[in-house]
Formats: sequence, structure tokens, C-alpha cells
Amino acid sequence: MNAAGIVVEYNPFHNGHLYHINETRRLSNADTIIAVMSGSFLQRGEPAIVDKWTRTKVALQHGVDIVVELPYAFSTQRAEIFAQGAIEILSHLKCRFFCFGSENGGMDPFLHTAEQLKKNSIELDTCVRSLMKEGMSYPAAQTKARNEVFGENALPLDLSKPNNILGFHYVQANLGLPTPMQPLTIQRKGAGFHDTESTGPIASATAIRQRLFTKEEPIHDVMPSLSAEAMQNRPLHSWESYWPLLRYRLLSIEPGRLASIYEVEEGIGPRLTEAARQNSSFAGFMGQVKTKRYTWTRLQRMMTHILTDTDKASMQKAQQTSFARLLGMTESGRAYIRSIKKEMEVPLLSRTAAAGSLLALDIKASRVFASAPNASESYVRSLLEQEYSMPPILL
Amino acid sequence: MNAAGIVVEYNPFHNGHLYHINETRRLSNADTIIAVMSGSFLQRGEPAIVDKWTRTKVALQHGVDIVVELPYAFSTQRAEIFAQGAIEILSHLKCRFFCFGSENGGMDPFLHTAEQLKKNSIELDTCVRSLMKEGMSYPAAQTKARNEVFGENALPLDLSKPNNILGFHYVQANLGLPTPMQPLTIQRKGAGFHDTESTGPIASATAIRQRLFTKEEPIHDVMPSLSAEAMQNRPLHSWESYWPLLRYRLLSIEPGRLASIYEVEEGIGPRLTEAARQNSSFAGFMGQVKTKRYTWTRLQRMMTHILTDTDKASMQKAQQTSFARLLGMTESGRAYIRSIKKEMEVPLLSRTAAAGSLLALDIKASRVFASAPNASESYVRSLLEQEYSMPPILL
Repeated sequence: MNAAGIVVEYNPFHNGHLYHINETRRLSNADTIIAVMSGSFLQRGEPAIVDKWTRTKVALQHGVDIVVELPYAFSTQRAEIFAQGAIEILSHLKCRFFCFGSENGGMDPFLHTAEQLKKNSIELDTCVRSLMKEGMSYPAAQTKARNEVFGENALPLDLSKPNNILGFHYVQANLGLPTPMQPLTIQRKGAGFHDTESTGPIASATAIRQRLFTKEEPIHDVMPSLSAEAMQNRPLHSWESYWPLLRYRLLSIEPGRLASIYEVEEGIGPRLTEAARQNSSFAGFMGQVKTKRYTWTRLQRMMTHILTDTDKASMQKAQQTSFARLLGMTESGRAYIRSIKKEMEVPLLSRTAAAGSLLALDIKASRVFASAPNASESYVRSLLEQEYSMPPILL
Repeated sequence: MNAAGIVVEYNPFHNGHLYHINETRRLSNADTIIAVMSGSFLQRGEPAIVDKWTRTKVALQHGVDIVVELPYAFSTQRAEIFAQGAIEILSHLKCRFFCFGSENGGMDPFLHTAEQLKKNSIELDTCVRSLMKEGMSYPAAQTKARNEVFGENALPLDLSKPNNILGFHYVQANLGLPTPMQPLTIQRKGAGFHDTESTGPIASATAIRQRLFTKEEPIHDVMPSLSAEAMQNRPLHSWESYWPLLRYRLLSIEPGRLASIYEVEEGIGPRLTEAARQNSSFAGFMGQVKTKRYTWTRLQRMMTHILTDTDKASMQKAQQTSFARLLGMTESGRAYIRSIKKEMEVPLLSRTAAAGSLLALDIKASRVFASAPNASESYVRSLLEQEYSMPPILL
């Protein structure tokens, strides 16, 4: 048996994701599709719209054979660390291929760019560091450093595009593996794209979340019906649902404790407290705190770690441990797992009880995810219980 | 001018409190009554029913001339530390007298008992420590140790009665001062007592809070009308209002951080997390966590410190600083302050802006007090603002 890996959030699962799965199978000709999926909190530093078990089930219903969790220690990080964590898990699961969507759509520019950047890495790093010292954000400093070192538009890959960036980091992480997988990429299709045969119209996840929250436009045309059904009649999570908790936390956290939280930098404390006092919404708070230096995404990640009380030490420890946590599989996925289990070099976890402290951060993140005020007690209780007692979903 | 001090919570202010003020004035013949009043969180480890400014105003309307805050570092503690903090503040404010309500009602038994306990303090301490090692709670160990050292009922003061205990610790703390004040005590009047001339029927604060929360019985007969008015049409705070926040906190706190919180002992963490998962109310949670070793009050104090993120280091630091924070005064109180200001050996704080870090814990406690979910944003905002910008109330 052979497998192709994909890195996903499914927030929520839509037609574009279905296209990605189908294309991955077609291009790789693999019999098994493995998705490494972010758990409760996502790369842009925000809660998933619905819990990971619901998203796992939908993934399995649409062609994914195995879903493993991208742990909190990687799922809430900037592209480089996010990609590193995801690619390593796919490699531990013995994937021969991995496939990502990108704006570019061809593999050569990724490989060529990775080579160029590797050759000039010392010069680039020095440049990024000095630009950040001047107050520039990390992404802006990276772009400027590349332009300074190579000249503008001299690289074959446009690294201002979000999916090119992620893909580039997948490729880079893959090149660092003892046995690299074969990378594949498909061109991402924007809104309006039609592939009526296998999928349907494609809208961005952002646009779909907007539709879900406002309930002003229907969603059944942009996502498979089973995914649309899974989104109906259930609480949808967003930062606004956690604002009372985050606000309380910002108003109560000891300054010394705040300084120990991952991604929190010296001196920002009073600014956060002040904005927490003055704002009754997360959006208002963010608008007040945002600066050129602190981009929206960076702030959201910082807020995620404050909300989950994740400190620098725990994060460092978690990033040094390797495991694969099984969230769900099909019968065919189960056969694949049996075929590779003996070769695996990291623990394959399917029950939290047996996981010891390996899942500590992920369990905590799920507990926080479950704590959104205004949800009914039965819903909160079900989220809390499933994190402890849920066996992997078998479809 | 001369002053008599009283130690109060006014949770809420009722006829018994009015009687206490009147009797203090009569017995001491002082022209100024100074109340040192707990701020946002109280001795039994619970939030005050209404904010401290509202309680200050009512106190000033009923004969108190000066209200100063008993800081969080003392207001949320067992009797010994609570009394130490309160008595020191009254002493810093140059009170000649202090007066407390007690079940006993006479001063000699307090003085005699203090003398006996002082003489046998080493033996008693050893005994208490060894009983606690066997798993006995602190109050139970103290009672048993006294019985073992002196024989049962051999002391002239019944130290199983809550107000005798507090009073006894006031007397003990006073004896430790360089210049002790003159202690006075009045007998506490229970429910049903009538002093129609100066006060009215007296019910316990617990019974009155019960009436306020259930709204089943009227309150105007057991408290002065201005106090009853102050309680009307405003959110009443109780532990249940903070349960969503405490629950979230218990479900998210890093184990290492939990261990650093004041009053939290090793090994209780998993028990707290488990109970937080399973309970939708504070009462249910407490019922599940309570043991013989962890009494209700002790647990409530522990929960208060977890809710306010108060660690052992901050508490130690706060207990070593001395100041008096003015919450309100009458014209006559102001004259008294002027008369003693030059002699005062600790800062008299009336604005948070000028207080530096001295008020850090108290401001944080007030911010947490203001964070109860389900309160309207305008109410939350008003509580948050007044802590920063409120000058002392002048009546």
C-alpha cells in the first residue's frame, strides 16, 4: 500500500477541499490519503469553527482514509514551524507523496526557490533580524530581505501569496527529512471556479464562514451536502465566543505570568490590559491593539496562547516530542495503519488515557475550546467528554 | 480628635452593623469611627455581594467617618492573617480604640486566653503541625491542640465561635503592636434581637443575602432603608456568577502555574480539573471537591486565588507592604485625616494612579470582580473605570 499526505484545517470542509483530495489521489495514484488536520486552534490563531471530531468525520466521508491531529504546538504557529510539524507527521506515517494547493501550481519554482534560499540563508537571516530590530513584522522583514538579497521578483516563486508560502515551507521541511517524500502541488482554484463533475463551485473558507455566521446566504452550493449538514444547528465557534474568557484572563493575569506565555513580548502587557478594559468585543480589542509591528495574525496567535495559558517552556517541550494522534480512519485506512505500524518510529496514539503527558497541550486546548460561554451545558459536557473518551472515528 | 476602629465586610450593611457603629461610638466616646473594610473578595473566600464603593457609601451614611480598604492580601485570609492586616491599618490610622462584636461580649476572657496561648505557644504549634500532618484541617487541629494542652473547656473563651475567634486574633495582633490600642467588644445580637430605638430587627448577613438572591422575603425590615435601596436593581455578585470563569481557568491552567498559586497544595490539581469538567455550577463543583481536609472555606479561598491568578510570590510581597487606601470619608473624617496625616508612617493612598505597584493585587481583584459574565457591558465598564479613576467618596 502507498499513501499521499495532505495538510488541512477544514474550517469548514468545502468543495475546494474535495477537489484537493481527488487531485491528490489522481496525481499520486496512492491508495491511501492521510490528512494531518489542525485540532482545536488554527494557524491564524483562532478557534476552529466546529470541533475536530466533527471535521474528522466529514473528511472521512469525502475520500480521506486517515485523519491525524496536527498538535497545538504546531497548528498555531507561523508557516515555518507549522509546516515542519505537519511534514514530519506525514513522514512518520510513511507517506510516499504529499500534495498541497498553491497559487503557483507548479513544483519547479518551489524547488528552485528552496535551493536559492538555502544557498543564501546566512545573509538572509542576518537581514531579517536587523529589519525586525527596526520594528518590522516577521513576514514583512522576510519579503524585504529576499528583495534585498536577490533583487525584486528575481525568485521564480511569488512568496507574497499565502499558499505559496505554506507550500514553500512544506517543500523546505521535506528536503530536510532523512528520506524526503515526493512533493506535488495543484493550483488553487478561487471563487467562481467550477468543476461540476467532482466538486462544485468553490468559495474560500473565509467567505463560507461569513455565510455560516450571518446566515444570509446559503452554503449548500459551496460545500458537499454532508459537510453543510454537519454545520447546521450547532454552535459555531469564533473568537467573539471566547472574548469574555480572554478579557477576564487579560484583566487578571499576573504580569510575570503574562511575560512567560509563548509569543508574548516584553512591554505589551499594559497595552493589552488597557484595551481589554475598554472593549466589549474581540474585534474592538484587536483593532485597538494592532500596530504595524503586531500584525493581526501574530496578535491572534498571542491571544490563543494567553487563552490556553501556554507558556514558553511547555511549548518548547511539546515541540520536541513526536507522535501521531489518530482522530479517525476508514476501513482502508485501518489496513494501511496495520501495514506500517511496525515500521513507525513514533507512538501512534488512539486513546488519551494511554498518552501520558504527550497530549497535555492538546487536551488543554480542547478543554478551552469547550469552555466558550453561552454554549449549553450539554454541548460543553459532550465536547469535554469526547476529548477524553473518544476512540478514533471509524468510518 | 480621637478615633475608634472597626473591622467590617458589610456584605451587605444591616441593622446589626448599625448597632455595632453606635455602640462603638458610645463605648469609646471617640469622635471618629474608622472602618477597615474588605474590598472585592472576602474572608470566607467569596466575592462581595456588591462593589466596595457602594458599600463604602452606605457605611458613611450610617455613622462611619472614614472607610479604608482591607487589602486583598489580608481580606481573603484565615482569621490570624486577616486580623493582623486589619489591626495594623487601624493602628497606622492612630486609632485609640478598636471594637468588635463577639459571642462572648466581655474583654477579660480574650485577654486571659491570649496570655495563656502566648505562654504555651511552642507546645501548641508543635501539636497543630503534627495534627495537620495527619490530615486534619487547620481550624480542627487548633481546637484539638488547645484541648490537648489545656484540657477541654479550660480556657475562659469559647474559641469554637466564629466571632470569638476573629476577636481573639484582633486582640492578639493588638498586643503585638508597639503601642497597642484599647480593645472593646460588644455582644453580637442574633436574629430576633430588637433595638427599635437605634436600629431594628437583626438578621445575619448570610440570611439577608439569601433573601436578596431569592427575592422571596423583604429586606427592608432587617437593614436601614438606604442600604436596602443600594441593593435594589443592581447585579448581585456570588460565586455562581464567576463559575464560567473559574471553570475555564481550572480547565486551562498549566499544572506548574496551578502549583504556584497561593494556598494551592501539591496533588490537588487533577481533582480540581476533574470536578470542573463534570459540574455546571459552583455549588456542584464544591460539593465534589470538598473533603475533611479541605474545608469549604479553605477551598473557597483557594478558588479565589486561582480566579485572581494570585501566586505565592505576589502574596508574600503584598503582605510585606503597608499602606492605607482611602475609600471614603465624611467632612468630619476629613478633619481627622488632616490631624494625623503628618504622624502617619505609611502612605495614605487616595488615587490609584499615584499608588505605583502597592495596589496591584487590589486593582487586579477589582478587575476580576468586574468580569462576571452575564453582567451588562455598561455595568462592567463602570466597575472597571471606577477602580482606576474613583477618588475617595466624600459625604
